[in-house]
Amino acid sequence: MRFKFPLVAISLEVAMIVLFGLFVQYETDQTIFQKQNTTGPMDTGRFLELYPLFQDVHVMIFVGFGFLMTFLKKYGFSSVGVNLLIAALGLQWGTIMQGILHSHGQKIHIGIKNIINADFSTATVLISFGAVLGKTSPVQMLIMTMLEIAAFAGNEYVVGEIFKASDIGASMTIHAFGAYFGLAVTVILYRSGLRKGHQNEESVYHSDLFAMIGTLFLWLFWPSFNSAIAEAGDKQYSAIVNTYLSLAACVLVAYAFSSLVEHGGKLDMVHIQNATLAGGVAVGTCADMKIQPYGSMIIGSVAGMVSVLGYKYLTPFFATKLRIQDTCGVHNLHGLPGVVGGLAGIVAVDLGVSNMTTVARQAAALGSSIGTAVVGGLITGLILKIPIWGQPLDENCYDDSVYWEVPRVREHDSGFHERDDHSQLELDV
Amino acid sequence: MRFKFPLVAISLEVAMIVLFGLFVQYETDQTIFQKQNTTGPMDTGRFLELYPLFQDVHVMIFVGFGFLMTFLKKYGFSSVGVNLLIAALGLQWGTIMQGILHSHGQKIHIGIKNIINADFSTATVLISFGAVLGKTSPVQMLIMTMLEIAAFAGNEYVVGEIFKASDIGASMTIHAFGAYFGLAVTVILYRSGLRKGHQNEESVYHSDLFAMIGTLFLWLFWPSFNSAIAEAGDKQYSAIVNTYLSLAACVLVAYAFSSLVEHGGKLDMVHIQNATLAGGVAVGTCADMKIQPYGSMIIGSVAGMVSVLGYKYLTPFFATKLRIQDTCGVHNLHGLPGVVGGLAGIVAVDLGVSNMTTVARQAAALGSSIGTAVVGGLITGLILKIPIWGQPLDENCYDDSVYWEVPRVREHDSGFHERDDHSQLELDV
Amino acid sequence: MRFKFPLVAISLEVAMIVLFGLFVQYETDQTIFQKQNTTGPMDTGRFLELYPLFQDVHVMIFVGFGFLMTFLKKYGFSSVGVNLLIAALGLQWGTIMQGILHSHGQKIHIGIKNIINADFSTATVLISFGAVLGKTSPVQMLIMTMLEIAAFAGNEYVVGEIFKASDIGASMTIHAFGAYFGLAVTVILYRSGLRKGHQNEESVYHSDLFAMIGTLFLWLFWPSFNSAIAEAGDKQYSAIVNTYLSLAACVLVAYAFSSLVEHGGKLDMVHIQNATLAGGVAVGTCADMKIQPYGSMIIGSVAGMVSVLGYKYLTPFFATKLRIQDTCGVHNLHGLPGVVGGLAGIVAVDLGVSNMTTVARQAAALGSSIGTAVVGGLITGLILKIPIWGQPLDENCYDDSVYWEVPRVREHDSGFHERDDHSQLELDV
Repeated sequence: MRFKFPLVAISLEVAMIVLFGLFVQYETDQTIFQKQNTTGPMDTGRFLELYPLFQDVHVMIFVGFGFLMTFLKKYGFSSVGVNLLIAALGLQWGTIMQGILHSHGQKIHIGIKNIINADFSTATVLISFGAVLGKTSPVQMLIMTMLEIAAFAGNEYVVGEIFKASDIGASMTIHAFGAYFGLAVTVILYRSGLRKGHQNEESVYHSDLFAMIGTLFLWLFWPSFNSAIAEAGDKQYSAIVNTYLSLAACVLVAYAFSSLVEHGGKLDMVHIQNATLAGGVAVGTCADMKIQPYGSMIIGSVAGMVSVLGYKYLTPFFATKLRIQDTCGVHNLHGLPGVVGGLAGIVAVDLGVSNMTTVARQAAALGSSIGTAVVGGLITGLILKIPIWGQPLDENCYDDSVYWEVPRVREHDSGFHERDDHSQLELDV
Repeated sequence: MRFKFPLVAISLEVAMIVLFGLFVQYETDQTIFQKQNTTGPMDTGRFLELYPLFQDVHVMIFVGFGFLMTFLKKYGFSSVGVNLLIAALGLQWGTIMQGILHSHGQKIHIGIKNIINADFSTATVLISFGAVLGKTSPVQMLIMTMLEIAAFAGNEYVVGEIFKASDIGASMTIHAFGAYFGLAVTVILYRSGLRKGHQNEESVYHSDLFAMIGTLFLWLFWPSFNSAIAEAGDKQYSAIVNTYLSLAACVLVAYAFSSLVEHGGKLDMVHIQNATLAGGVAVGTCADMKIQPYGSMIIGSVAGMVSVLGYKYLTPFFATKLRIQDTCGVHNLHGLPGVVGGLAGIVAVDLGVSNMTTVARQAAALGSSIGTAVVGGLITGLILKIPIWGQPLDENCYDDSVYWEVPRVREHDSGFHERDDHSQLELDV
Repeated sequence: MRFKFPLVAISLEVAMIVLFGLFVQYETDQTIFQKQNTTGPMDTGRFLELYPLFQDVHVMIFVGFGFLMTFLKKYGFSSVGVNLLIAALGLQWGTIMQGILHSHGQKIHIGIKNIINADFSTATVLISFGAVLGKTSPVQMLIMTMLEIAAFAGNEYVVGEIFKASDIGASMTIHAFGAYFGLAVTVILYRSGLRKGHQNEESVYHSDLFAMIGTLFLWLFWPSFNSAIAEAGDKQYSAIVNTYLSLAACVLVAYAFSSLVEHGGKLDMVHIQNATLAGGVAVGTCADMKIQPYGSMIIGSVAGMVSVLGYKYLTPFFATKLRIQDTCGVHNLHGLPGVVGGLAGIVAVDLGVSNMTTVARQAAALGSSIGTAVVGGLITGLILKIPIWGQPLDENCYDDSVYWEVPRVREHDSGFHERDDHSQLELDV
């Protein structure tokens, strides 16, 4: 670890700078302003109009995903810190990978859609990061970022350019893809030593509150996520309204099912932190279609229910029977709702167009996303299994102190003010 | 509680889906784009232009209100979690209630103003939630959401359509209304067992910092709250600038008075978390009028002073003499400053127009808002008092563990890394 | 302290109201809308278009700076609370000072650029606040706000209007200025009693997570900071893209160097919280120039490296040898990267224009910023040294309880739920 991490990180950044020097240019004045006058609705001239939506997505990636994973009591530094590291590398690499596939041999001209898409590509890796959280090293995560974004960009190209399928909010290409990629990696990295759980794999009261910061910023800005690259005008409007309503419906159903499946009818923070977001995932594919407001709410409700049931019944089953150790339960937040989204997209297209070809294209897109994710994840897992990347020992899992300088003082020292010093029971004996 | 909460939550969501299916439609292309070309300044075609302001309001509702109430040491899950639940139900129900009153028998077409107004209607309930925080069950809060938003929409219709009063930032219709509604509910739900306070009704160091997250996001985005539905152009601009300045002035005065009234001149976190926001409340009614920059600052200063004095002197008086147990002191943050706002609106209209009818309309709006709130709150309180809604016992008040699975590990386990394990004093004896 | 702080705060607010009454007006309809039709690119009519960028900057000032400084275990209330106080005063005073210098004797008309610039002027003081954090009283900070913003506005006028230098993201006029001003103040306020450090001058696990909230919101919205007042169109676009890329590159290099210089290759939270932002500072001066995407990434990489090395080697050297006690290490986050930014600006202008005059103007701007900051800081330090401002004793430094009512309960009481009450060891004996 002493020099491996710095060496890998600096080499990757140097590589990025070289690649950007070779392939990436500004949009020229002509590129920006001439396109504004073209008839195409997807013009790239809407920079400042789309910039607020980009910033919403940006908050989701860095604050949303980052804090959502801080629920573990001793793994907050890594959650929010490695999240930042992955995303910072990923957005550079995503710009290159997506740009090369779409630029057809020309230079890549960075516009607002490129930086939104670059942020999107990092989301895929951050979802997979949730599956392997606490059991991997920063070096492994840098490698996974490079491999997964390459696979993601390839699948996205196939789904969008070859199958010409709809997936505006990326239920399939980001959420299902990221989840199944992460599950495949974690299958390969299976640790029998963690079969019976780990004492660090739990939350404390305040870490659950930190995680709610992530949940809320994800929940709030999800309409921007699903609409940011939608066609201007009517479709973008629909994507915002549908996502807004799907998420609201999802909350009520997720709370209801959390209470229903828990001992004594209590609410479970894991469900609240995660399943309330499933509505945003599931409405993604058809967010810009005319599925009607109540249609969005049905999709959100189903997603909320499926997600809670997944956390309650599937995750333990996966861990004990299938050797799938999914730390954050990304299968329940992104995998299942992503598949629900893909299926909802098939139904929506079917109802709207009555055209078997379109339906088949949607189904192919779902299949391609899951297939590419699983194959890519298995290969990535095998590479990450090579014992040279500074993996933590079983006993050091879910513990920041392996990779971080951690304050040694006791927690309750903070803000701890006794009136009489002599009444203070000294704990550090 | 075992099945009551899930049953109520799912029934309400099913009802919402049915109501949306019956009454709510997208804005059609014609609706959106034709209106852009009309001369009316309140056209609904400004979707993407107003979307950033909507998102600011959205952050205030979910992060702002949610975290502001996390100051209690053992009630953070409920504060931020039930806040989310109320708001998710409220925005659906608010869309229906406001839509029906304003659509005159036609279908409700959801545009950007509708979703901003839906968020606004939830704010009313979240303010009332602050008054009863810690003493009520989630089921009670779902019921309160339904009843209060119905009363809110009715009063708002009367104020806007019948009295035709100005209240752009909703000092009267949201803030005063929500506060007096909540106070009326808490009067009915009076608990003599909490007369001498409760050991859980206090903050710890970190919970006060979590609450500051809420304070700051409310403070920051308040200019958006007061301007989001203002008339495009000059009035929207005035609403932003006036609120920005009122809040800044309010901060200095609130800090000054906090230090002035506290023992030894120290600052009190309760005042800082709450009274700094009073300037946003009080400038609401006349935010879009030409009250001049220094006028806004005077309003903000008065509000900051009134709010701190309320926390210091009124809240204890209310609790001991008037049987009003106002957990978050919403009377000082929303009630008094809301009344100040209503009065400032009367003065501003009077100075601007010199028209007694207009002044009378503003006064009637203030009276209607407080009157409807008190009556509505009393009725709601009586319904919530029926002992079948899973209310907590006195000794379980302000404690998440009644309704939530709460981590059992000790706080200081997190991030607690001793060098020598043998020097660790085991506390769980 | 009993009456000094309230008296100073109220007097300042009264002064602000009087000054606003005398000098500040709304933009009139004519001002706003006529300018839209002029050919000048810097028209003030873009209110709602720039408002989202203003709000991003607003979040940076209040949440970003505020929470970034909460890393100290017992000084979170002051960090986030005095940050709010300084910024609320500063934005009023900044409006006056900048307005008077730029209005040439006319009234100040508040537009969107004015409130963005008002927020900017507070940033300067908040940076200096970081240098003296924990060792000063709220009254001292109010005084520093008044003096520093006066000096800042003067220097900004010289740089922009006399030297006509480029500094769109204010690497020189805000970051270097704020850092060197703060360092000069802290030199004068040197406390030999803190020579060997202080037991409160350290973080705990959760306080480091709170600080990451600040880091992330600063990091995210930095593209808005560097582009908010840029010329509409191409230059604004460039400022956004360049800053986005510079920050991404900076993260990888900062992580790499943090691991490289730390014992055992571990990451250090101080570096992650701060050095990851240096890329935003350093690219500021030339953010709106055509430095090419890879050029931004090189600037960000250099800044990340310089900043980590500064934290590791310069800060201890400053503290022990130079009597500069820089609590937050603002020299490494704002000082050095600000100078890097100034130098990068000279190089960029040189490469672009090949005009010695322009190069000399940039160099003069850098010199003026540092020179004015140092002189202004020394004078301010001398005024703050007068022993009547309620300064804390050495033993009370970095401790909220001097100026705040602090909860007396122990931290781990929160969310602490034992199954058996009799097994609970009572700590408050």
